[in-house]
Amino acid sequence: MDKDRAAETVRDALGQRFGETFAVDAALPGLDELARIAGHRVHRLYLDRAVDPALVRLLCACALSAPSKSDLQQGDIMVVADAAKRRVIADLIPDQPWVAQSPVFLVFLASGRRLPQIAQLRGKPFPNDHLDQFFNAAVDAALVLATFVRAAEAVGLGCCPISVIRDHSARVSELLGLPQRVIPVAGMCLGWPAGSGSISPRLSLQSTLHTDQYDDSDFARRIETYDRRRAALKPYGAQRDPAQWGKADFYGWSEDKARQYAEPQRADFGAFVRAKGFCLD
Amino acid sequence: MDKDRAAETVRDALGQRFGETFAVDAALPGLDELARIAGHRVHRLYLDRAVDPALVRLLCACALSAPSKSDLQQGDIMVVADAAKRRVIADLIPDQPWVAQSPVFLVFLASGRRLPQIAQLRGKPFPNDHLDQFFNAAVDAALVLATFVRAAEAVGLGCCPISVIRDHSARVSELLGLPQRVIPVAGMCLGWPAGSGSISPRLSLQSTLHTDQYDDSDFARRIETYDRRRAALKPYGAQRDPAQWGKADFYGWSEDKARQYAEPQRADFGAFVRAKGFCLD
Repeated sequence: MDKDRAAETVRDALGQRFGETFAVDAALPGLDELARIAGHRVHRLYLDRAVDPALVRLLCACALSAPSKSDLQQGDIMVVADAAKRRVIADLIPDQPWVAQSPVFLVFLASGRRLPQIAQLRGKPFPNDHLDQFFNAAVDAALVLATFVRAAEAVGLGCCPISVIRDHSARVSELLGLPQRVIPVAGMCLGWPAGSGSISPRLSLQSTLHTDQYDDSDFARRIETYDRRRAALKPYGAQRDPAQWGKADFYGWSEDKARQYAEPQRADFGAFVRAKGFCLD
Repeated sequence: MDKDRAAETVRDALGQRFGETFAVDAALPGLDELARIAGHRVHRLYLDRAVDPALVRLLCACALSAPSKSDLQQGDIMVVADAAKRRVIADLIPDQPWVAQSPVFLVFLASGRRLPQIAQLRGKPFPNDHLDQFFNAAVDAALVLATFVRAAEAVGLGCCPISVIRDHSARVSELLGLPQRVIPVAGMCLGWPAGSGSISPRLSLQSTLHTDQYDDSDFARRIETYDRRRAALKPYGAQRDPAQWGKADFYGWSEDKARQYAEPQRADFGAFVRAKGFCLD
């Protein structure tokens, strides 16, 4: 892509995303890459074309090159290659058929296991069995996940993270033989995209980018503005649970998210994490 | 970079990182980007050259384009522009002088605040005050952080994440006016790198990339092999706490990490998170 075109692509993507016009200097290096990052989109439909396992391995190595808290390396990746295991996971999530259909399915794991194992191996005490250990492992896994998405999109693949596997944490853990202190953070569908996808508009930077002092003043107006901007670009196809909540005249992001979390979600997650051996004190 | 050269760069970086020879097809698109991902390195020394605030804002927008769990958008970014506030943070972390010296300093935030606020705004109940809410916000913040690193490195900037700000969570939160249910995940130094940095060797993919079944068999031998490979490429400059643990004949990664976590680290983190209004049940 020539530089002016790349700068324009970044500007267009971020304009759609945040409803703001950014000045993008065409002399900036790396604009092709910024264009892919700014233009990130989920892909749930894939071509009927395999992804070479060697390429998947290469992308996983790139992902595992991500930063890691204190170099502790607590994020792992699981490739679900076995068709029967994939089928079990897909059957747990019937409303997301891409889990069954994507050419590749991965699970990103938080591993709080190695660190206490290493303490034992080196004959040291481990007086760190508390929330920080769980938090660090979860954050490391997320860093690996995000870096995986960047690597996959760099080569033209499309991804869809599947966080809903956490609705079935115990079943997925058992299926994949996850030992104590290793938990699934999210699944990931991967394949060659069958369409162009679309950019998800995000809250304006007024809401999410702060300088020196957290600012969530004018909350209701900002959310309303975002709801309207988003609905104009990417309206919801259906309203969630109209039997319970009725049909809204205007249905925006905040209404959708409020309805989604008006029901208990993963109320057993804490019990699962504790049963897996993490202390959350 | 021509394609053969880019493929060689990816191969070399991953070879150093994982001690394995990867086949990298020079016909693959996006190899320049994979080379940057695979070649990721921390930068703690920066040129005496400012980073344009408009560029920082652009990179933050790219970072906030990262995937987000259920589109809940629970990762925020704080730019610490005020010199006095930066000084306070730097003084908390005197053994990391780059916190004072980097041209730009950011803090990545987990925000579990907006979702219950939105429930209230939309007149819905919020029966989701439990671990999942904290976990989702932390993971979202980490996705934003990792994507920020990719955007920064794309344009030639260097980064150093500062997770040790969590040793001072309450002080940093107060300083930055973080309200209830918003917590710092990590700081980030940013600037134009003054050196080339070096690749951190990682555990082999035998340890961190699994297929169908988690595998940490042969643990001690794998760690020993990694310790030796890593020490040959990037030996530790000094042993940690020799007064307590003596001087090891061979000092590898596992010995360093075992010593680091032989002392309590952030034992008050759980209390801080709870005091900030998160329920971890």
